[in-house]
Amino acid sequence: MEKGSLILLDYTAKIKDTNEIFETTRADDVKNNPDYDPNKKYEPRLLGVGEGWVLKGLDEALLESSIDTPLNIEIPPEKAFGERDPSKVRMIPLRKLGEKANEVSIGDVIELDDRIGIIRFIGSGRVQVDFNHKYAGRTLVYSANIVKKLDDDNEKISNLISRRLPIDLTEVKYETKESDLEISLPENTFLIEGIQIIKRGISTDIFKFIPSLKSLVFLEKYTNSVSDAEKPSEAKNTDSGPDKDTSNDKDEKDKKEDSKIEGKSTEVRPKSKKEKS
Amino acid sequence: MEKGSLILLDYTAKIKDTNEIFETTRADDVKNNPDYDPNKKYEPRLLGVGEGWVLKGLDEALLESSIDTPLNIEIPPEKAFGERDPSKVRMIPLRKLGEKANEVSIGDVIELDDRIGIIRFIGSGRVQVDFNHKYAGRTLVYSANIVKKLDDDNEKISNLISRRLPIDLTEVKYETKESDLEISLPENTFLIEGIQIIKRGISTDIFKFIPSLKSLVFLEKYTNSVSDAEKPSEAKNTDSGPDKDTSNDKDEKDKKEDSKIEGKSTEVRPKSKKEKS
Repeated sequence: MEKGSLILLDYTAKIKDTNEIFETTRADDVKNNPDYDPNKKYEPRLLGVGEGWVLKGLDEALLESSIDTPLNIEIPPEKAFGERDPSKVRMIPLRKLGEKANEVSIGDVIELDDRIGIIRFIGSGRVQVDFNHKYAGRTLVYSANIVKKLDDDNEKISNLISRRLPIDLTEVKYETKESDLEISLPENTFLIEGIQIIKRGISTDIFKFIPSLKSLVFLEKYTNSVSDAEKPSEAKNTDSGPDKDTSNDKDEKDKKEDSKIEGKSTEVRPKSKKEKS
Repeated sequence: MEKGSLILLDYTAKIKDTNEIFETTRADDVKNNPDYDPNKKYEPRLLGVGEGWVLKGLDEALLESSIDTPLNIEIPPEKAFGERDPSKVRMIPLRKLGEKANEVSIGDVIELDDRIGIIRFIGSGRVQVDFNHKYAGRTLVYSANIVKKLDDDNEKISNLISRRLPIDLTEVKYETKESDLEISLPENTFLIEGIQIIKRGISTDIFKFIPSLKSLVFLEKYTNSVSDAEKPSEAKNTDSGPDKDTSNDKDEKDKKEDSKIEGKSTEVRPKSKKEKS
């Protein structure tokens, strides 16, 4: 595979010494496992070969691979999650764990100073916390299969969009006009958290894998649900206008929060609860 | 003025008994005041007449007014910020103010239990806090002037957009195709916080004041800054791919934060710092 190829990869990754599956795109391989998630879509994964989207060891193997040959490789720790670093195992006073100090037991995963660690030992007012990556020092075994290499621009586009947007390929509507691409987003994506960052990411991806494109336009369409007959003034308006903004009663402001989508002038507002949905 | 008219209103509002200007669109009226803000745009304000965007008293007066007659009105408290409610003045133990208990003085504005109040009295471990609206009980005097009534749809559109989006009217690009409106947003609006809510608000406004419109599309255009010659794989990719996501080293994750705009698969991400700018 050439560097920069877009492929769909089917794979199952295991920890060599325990045979634990830590990631798979094949439902069959985990169906009988306790961590099988029926809501998850097990399907081939879009990958840019040699682009650093996956572990170094896998990326390198993909560069050497071809579509017809199944890939069965072992990835040593240094090309996976790194070697274990003994200095990342620390003895820490129990009181540093705060409220949790009396609740933790061996094997618990805790967060301390923005690092995640596993409790290895508890005793005499101290705990031993291992801040190594869970899979540091482990050799991984990948069984992989390149299902398809995407050569068609349209296929690339729809896959790159759905990679970042949690929508079905069938929901992705787009149209190429010469070297300009128009992507129509469905309404259920408008209020996805971080949607603007997602759009920027999609455009970066698409320009990267289809460099011949000159521009990309996202279209978001709203339709008028109010009938023509209804007068504008009949629509209920709960706007908090310029004068009312001087209100210093925060309770009243909170009550208005729900209707703020229709209000508030040009002010750039803090993130609304609605935006999270 | 008919209900539902869109007008540009020039006005200065004062508190009757103190002559204090509390809001104005006329730079001349505040030029010599200490609270004159040279960065603020003093310009006629877009108002939907009878739509509840402004204080009830002003809205009612506008319905009775015409474009040629200046408006000079007094608005009694019940049609402005309400009467003063004596029960909203409370004696509160000083300790309830927490750390600020020793710092407050009479006249200070404080926030307590999500309400804003003014300290009226301090003594013997207690403070009297007035939770009435600052202008409750006050009669307001408005001197107003309808500068223009917007009848042209294009004028309505550009004003309704710039009312919610902090951009110049001249930056607002749009095009009407029969009963469909296309609004092209400039790139500097893409990452405005709450932009999706703003767009929804703009569409609600536009459909309300131009009910003949059937649909509205927002266009956000990205241009390819990478030259065609550059190979896709040469662009630096700092993506954190599927496998790497199992990393439990949060420090490493933080380091990657800056490059996440270009990464992270289809995950709906928490709000990025970048989104706030």
